Amino acid sequence: MCRWIAYRGETTLFENYVTEPVHSLITQSLRARESAGPTNGDGFGLGWYGVHPEPGLYRETRPAWSDENLRYLCRHLQSHMFFAHVRAATGTPVTRQNCHPFACGRWMFMHNGFVGSWSRLRRRIEAMIPDPLYPSRSGNTDSEAIFLAIMGAGIDEDPIAATRTVMTRLGALLNENGLRERMRFTAALANGHDLYAFRFAENDAANSLYYRQAGDRLIVASEPYDGEPGWTEVPANHVLVSRSAHQIELLPFMQDERKSEHPGAQRVVARA
Amino acid sequence: MCRWIAYRGETTLFENYVTEPVHSLITQSLRARESAGPTNGDGFGLGWYGVHPEPGLYRETRPAWSDENLRYLCRHLQSHMFFAHVRAATGTPVTRQNCHPFACGRWMFMHNGFVGSWSRLRRRIEAMIPDPLYPSRSGNTDSEAIFLAIMGAGIDEDPIAATRTVMTRLGALLNENGLRERMRFTAALANGHDLYAFRFAENDAANSLYYRQAGDRLIVASEPYDGEPGWTEVPANHVLVSRSAHQIELLPFMQDERKSEHPGAQRVVARA
Amino acid sequence: MCRWIAYRGETTLFENYVTEPVHSLITQSLRARESAGPTNGDGFGLGWYGVHPEPGLYRETRPAWSDENLRYLCRHLQSHMFFAHVRAATGTPVTRQNCHPFACGRWMFMHNGFVGSWSRLRRRIEAMIPDPLYPSRSGNTDSEAIFLAIMGAGIDEDPIAATRTVMTRLGALLNENGLRERMRFTAALANGHDLYAFRFAENDAANSLYYRQAGDRLIVASEPYDGEPGWTEVPANHVLVSRSAHQIELLPFMQDERKSEHPGAQRVVARA
Amino acid sequence: MCRWIAYRGETTLFENYVTEPVHSLITQSLRARESAGPTNGDGFGLGWYGVHPEPGLYRETRPAWSDENLRYLCRHLQSHMFFAHVRAATGTPVTRQNCHPFACGRWMFMHNGFVGSWSRLRRRIEAMIPDPLYPSRSGNTDSEAIFLAIMGAGIDEDPIAATRTVMTRLGALLNENGLRERMRFTAALANGHDLYAFRFAENDAANSLYYRQAGDRLIVASEPYDGEPGWTEVPANHVLVSRSAHQIELLPFMQDERKSEHPGAQRVVARA
Repeated sequence: MCRWIAYRGETTLFENYVTEPVHSLITQSLRARESAGPTNGDGFGLGWYGVHPEPGLYRETRPAWSDENLRYLCRHLQSHMFFAHVRAATGTPVTRQNCHPFACGRWMFMHNGFVGSWSRLRRRIEAMIPDPLYPSRSGNTDSEAIFLAIMGAGIDEDPIAATRTVMTRLGALLNENGLRERMRFTAALANGHDLYAFRFAENDAANSLYYRQAGDRLIVASEPYDGEPGWTEVPANHVLVSRSAHQIELLPFMQDERKSEHPGAQRVVARA
Repeated sequence: MCRWIAYRGETTLFENYVTEPVHSLITQSLRARESAGPTNGDGFGLGWYGVHPEPGLYRETRPAWSDENLRYLCRHLQSHMFFAHVRAATGTPVTRQNCHPFACGRWMFMHNGFVGSWSRLRRRIEAMIPDPLYPSRSGNTDSEAIFLAIMGAGIDEDPIAATRTVMTRLGALLNENGLRERMRFTAALANGHDLYAFRFAENDAANSLYYRQAGDRLIVASEPYDGEPGWTEVPANHVLVSRSAHQIELLPFMQDERKSEHPGAQRVVARA
Repeated sequence: MCRWIAYRGETTLFENYVTEPVHSLITQSLRARESAGPTNGDGFGLGWYGVHPEPGLYRETRPAWSDENLRYLCRHLQSHMFFAHVRAATGTPVTRQNCHPFACGRWMFMHNGFVGSWSRLRRRIEAMIPDPLYPSRSGNTDSEAIFLAIMGAGIDEDPIAATRTVMTRLGALLNENGLRERMRFTAALANGHDLYAFRFAENDAANSLYYRQAGDRLIVASEPYDGEPGWTEVPANHVLVSRSAHQIELLPFMQDERKSEHPGAQRVVARA
Repeated sequence: MCRWIAYRGETTLFENYVTEPVHSLITQSLRARESAGPTNGDGFGLGWYGVHPEPGLYRETRPAWSDENLRYLCRHLQSHMFFAHVRAATGTPVTRQNCHPFACGRWMFMHNGFVGSWSRLRRRIEAMIPDPLYPSRSGNTDSEAIFLAIMGAGIDEDPIAATRTVMTRLGALLNENGLRERMRFTAALANGHDLYAFRFAENDAANSLYYRQAGDRLIVASEPYDGEPGWTEVPANHVLVSRSAHQIELLPFMQDERKSEHPGAQRVVARA
């Protein structure tokens, strides 16, 4: 299980969110030293929006806890929207190309989860990536393949619909021949303006996802990084949406598809 | 242009061939310091056969010239058959998974060359890899894809025929729509007993390939690593074959396919 | 706390001891995934004796658990005497030069422990390294400095006496001005023929150390790597000695110096 | 011979100076591909001043030409004062701690040159580092040792005098016993406000150093990175000084000490 945080709000230094909190992402990468939880030592990454419409990336294969560059960058980099991710590999190699976040054009993506029987299904999932995007496939994770499939399913028009399209197709693959393979998909997607955070699973329990809002600062995280109040869980099978000049929304995600008896799952407006 | 050497013969320490020659592979990785030639600083690899039927690999992303581990391993590793390779990347990332040699089952492969318009043709070349071998695709080079395609084209029955099958299919792709894309394929293939070294190109001049035999020691190399006599060029469109209890053979490769007017190109028995 | 094993005996593949045991060193590097124990993810190393009187080394900064090269090397390397070490850094950077084992001439050394107030005492401890050995100082750990100090204190004549000399001088430094700084020193030393394993601490409890003998195979380890019987603890303030054509011996170490009331601590012959 | 550039002026993106010029530092790292010059593939580094008084650093051991992170960072990082350096090692290991720039407190330093007989003189040069700064010694290059010695010789009061003090002491060491060891020192020093660039050598010719000024933008570089006019050579045995609200100055450096017959070498005011 990977760990990640996504930030959207007033321009801020990364250190306030990535390295300084008591139970920061860096501490989580090492957490095993203090608790029975897992290590996230299989590389890490930062992604952010700045002067260019396309995001910047810093990804490394060493554990986050021992990377001097990461500490310097978190002290100096500022952004109104950034992602940070520490990786626990689930079978694919530890290369920079397999570290999150992934970037393609203006979009950025990171993921905590897995696709069951990935090595068996990989080829068919990669086939969901349209030809013009296939040169962007530079690693061999399930996460990157899913991202590029979402890119190709109309992300610019409607990122939630594009993600739904890909999840539906993945669900069909996973459930073929009555196999009911599992998938977990707790992921963040951004384009420099809008942030989408999904909490979903197929044939399995969804990985945890929380958010906290303070003024115009929104943080979404795989787990709370401090003991302060204000952390709210994103419900399973929902997507959190944060768009300019809109309140945060929590929308049902993949519920119609899964429970056709409840076609009209209504919007839940988040309480800040 | 990458540089490589392949050894087959009496069990020997790697250092005698990889690190000690005047113009050793390590020196070639750096050669730019002394000549106008290219640097091969985009990673390197060793592959060898020992106590297991499957080869051992040591691949690293840093330049060969500064790797302390490489020097130690070359002083201590011995084998009757080994490959060494220094890489000059042609567009794909510098990861261990993209470094040569590649191993799959008992087979080992390394390559100096390229496929023109790789990012456009990649998907169709990857489609030549049969499903059961696709999980072995761990990088994104043209070289690894070609190797796995050869694996899947009957390498255990007849490695030369399997390579010919793949080259023929590649040729068809390259020449589609009259495009005449270029490809260079100077490559070594081994299974622990037999060694095959190909020198071939499509729509282009073939990269250089030499061999030298001394007693039962055969060395095949992309260029001579010393000024001693005995280096012989492998002719373009030929494959050098070295099998247990056989003399070295230089066989025409892809000549029938390319020059149908000379269907009966005869065997050339190498002069030791 | 680092973890290590040392082997002396019949020539064997490393995999039998390093990668295959249920609770192998590689598993220990990751152990935090399964228990509340620490992660040893700050690099690792292998050292071994082979055809050269000087040892070979393979050291890497990434965690042992994700290193493909390590798995290949353990499947192929054989030796009658080898060390393996996974590192948990205590303040010094994660570089290959700071990974264990360290080699100097014919000698090889690895360590689990620390020197209290290292950054304050470092310069004075480095001053124990004689000038001719100072160029061998390539990292900045306490462990390497102690090894080079032992090298310079007459290791070739009497490695135990040389180690005692250095520990005594260190003890004096640690206890200056009544400060009683702590030090833990659980370490292995070898020259290709003889193996010495120390378990000692100053102003502190000693880190654990075990050994197991089966026929002529001796393994010494910071903790048992399986649930089999035969693991015996090395008592604190002792050194285990294994020399050609001698039975294993457990000798008191630094007891005379520390408890002058028991000057004649007698030898304990180990039960095989 | 390393290659470096230093920038002082209006806040700018690094890409304008580090990655985009025709003969950029990145191209210089690879230059051997196009000319007979050396490769600078033994790591690289960026250092810059931003929101903190202490500089940020990004240093890596891989060659600059293949580092994806470097390209992203140069597209996104902005500063009014930054350093970039590509390294050609002269004997010390390729670790991040041995890559330039080095930082200590508010100061940043990078170097192109060497100290002759470094492994023999190292200990005595390290002895010039005062105790309180010795914990900052994290690598083992001559460059870092000289920087920390300058730090300790009164850098905050007068950086030129501190550098002169250290060079004078180094000169005495190099010339001991009539040995006349060589040293080259082409280096940059900055504190976030002021920039100092030295061109000096002892018993040798000084490495090249150039600068170009356009408006309030000053670039100092080991060689011009484009064919545009405006590049001026810094004379040997001079220091270029660029301070807020002052014109650039070129001051004699180490001339009094070396040529006592010309004690009154006068200031040269640079022509912009």
